[in-house]
Amino acid sequence: MTYCVAMRLRAGLLFASDSRTNAGVDQIATFRKMNVFEQPGERLVTLLTAGNLATTQSVISLLRQRAGKEGRHLMNLTSMYDVAELVGRTLKEVVARDSEGNGQLNQGVDFGGNFIVGGQIKGEVPRIFHVYPQGNFIEATEDTPYLQIGESKYGKPIIDRVIDFDSSLAEATKCALISFDSTIRSNLSVGLPIDMLLYRTDSFAPAEPHRITKDDPYFTTISQGWGGGLKRVFEQLPDEDWFK
Amino acid sequence: MTYCVAMRLRAGLLFASDSRTNAGVDQIATFRKMNVFEQPGERLVTLLTAGNLATTQSVISLLRQRAGKEGRHLMNLTSMYDVAELVGRTLKEVVARDSEGNGQLNQGVDFGGNFIVGGQIKGEVPRIFHVYPQGNFIEATEDTPYLQIGESKYGKPIIDRVIDFDSSLAEATKCALISFDSTIRSNLSVGLPIDMLLYRTDSFAPAEPHRITKDDPYFTTISQGWGGGLKRVFEQLPDEDWFK
Repeated sequence: MTYCVAMRLRAGLLFASDSRTNAGVDQIATFRKMNVFEQPGERLVTLLTAGNLATTQSVISLLRQRAGKEGRHLMNLTSMYDVAELVGRTLKEVVARDSEGNGQLNQGVDFGGNFIVGGQIKGEVPRIFHVYPQGNFIEATEDTPYLQIGESKYGKPIIDRVIDFDSSLAEATKCALISFDSTIRSNLSVGLPIDMLLYRTDSFAPAEPHRITKDDPYFTTISQGWGGGLKRVFEQLPDEDWFK
Repeated sequence: MTYCVAMRLRAGLLFASDSRTNAGVDQIATFRKMNVFEQPGERLVTLLTAGNLATTQSVISLLRQRAGKEGRHLMNLTSMYDVAELVGRTLKEVVARDSEGNGQLNQGVDFGGNFIVGGQIKGEVPRIFHVYPQGNFIEATEDTPYLQIGESKYGKPIIDRVIDFDSSLAEATKCALISFDSTIRSNLSVGLPIDMLLYRTDSFAPAEPHRITKDDPYFTTISQGWGGGLKRVFEQLPDEDWFK
C-alpha cells in the first residue's frame, strides 16, 4: 500500500509520500513515490504515485523519456490542467499496453494506479490534481485544499480538523507528519522514510525534497509530542459513569 | 455503512453501534444495529451487525424466533464460542437462501454481513467474537482487546493509543465516543444516534443500553473537549521551517 498527501494553500504547496511497496507482507521494498519535473524560474511539477508499481513506474518513465522531445510533454505544457490530462492519458496508455493480450494471466491483477499531480507553471497559481485509474481527474479547491491517495483514512481526521487554505506551510508540515504518524501506526503497509517537498507560491525555486527517516529529530518530536498530548487530552476529559 | 465497536476488558464489556443505514446517499434511514439476548443472572449475549440489512435482519429474526424452542439456540448454548458458531451458521443459511435461484438478479449484490457477537454465559469469562461473512470467526484476546466492523479506520487510531485490557469501563466509554466522533465527522454514512451497552464482568445484570443522540450532554462534552484539545496540542507542537 501507500500513503500520499498534497496540500494547496495560499502560501504554497506541500507534497508528502511514504516509500513502502509490498506484494504480500513478506515482499516489502522501499521505492520513492515522489517524482519532480522542474525548470527553476519557470515550472515545478510533482507527481506522487499509488497502486500497481509496474504501471506507475512506466508512466513516470514515459513522461520523463518524452520530456524535452518534440510534441506536448511535461516541460512545455502551459497549464497544470494540461499536465494532469497528459498524466491521465499516459496512465491509460500504459494500462492498455500491459493488460493487452494476456488472456487468463490478467485474472485478479489490478493494473490501476492513482496519481497526485501538482505544481506551478509560470502564469498560473499553484494547483493540485488527483488523477484516477480511469485517467480522469479532480482538482483541489480552497474549500478542500488537500488530496490523498492510498491508505488515506487513518490520517484524514487530523487534516480535516486543522488545515484550511490559510494555514501556513509550517502548520501543513506539522499536520502532514501527524497524519503519516497515525497511518504508519495503524497500517503495516505504509512505512518510513517519508519524502516531503515544500514549495512557496510564485517562488519557482529549485525543489529540495526532505527525506524523513525514523531518526529525524523533528519527526520524533512531533510523533512523541502528539502521542503524549493525545493521552493528556484524553485523561483530562471527564468520565461519566453510566452504571450509576 | 455502519460503525460498530466492542471492547473486552478485565472490568467488563463495552458494545457500541451507530444507527445509520443507506443505499445511496439519498436513501438513509435509522436502524438499531444492537441486539440483546439476555437472561439476567445467567447470560447476556449482544450482537452488533454490519452489511446487507436484509441479511442481518433475517439472521437476528431467525435467532430470536428459534430461541426458547427445541434444539440448540442462543438461550441454551453453554459457551460464547458455540454462540458465535451458531451466528455464523445462521448467517450462511440466510445468504444461501436469499442468493439462491436469482440468476442474473444477484449481479453486483453483496448479500454478506459482519457480526460482533459478545457477552458472558455463567461459567465462562466475558468474550467477544467477530463473525465474518463466510461464517467463520475470530475472538478478541488480551493483546488486542477490541473488535470493529463497518467503517473502522477513522476511529481506530485513538483506540490503539489509549485502550488496553486493564482500561476501566469509564475510559472505554470515553474512548468509544471519541472513536465514533472521528468516524461520524469523516464519513457521512455513519450517523447518530449511538447505542451503547456496558456490562460489568460477572454481574449478569439486566442490560441497560444507552441511546446517545446529538443532544446528549456527555457526548457533546467529549466531542467538543476532544476537538479543542487536539487543536491545542497541535498548536503547542513546535514548528520547523525547512525553508531556512
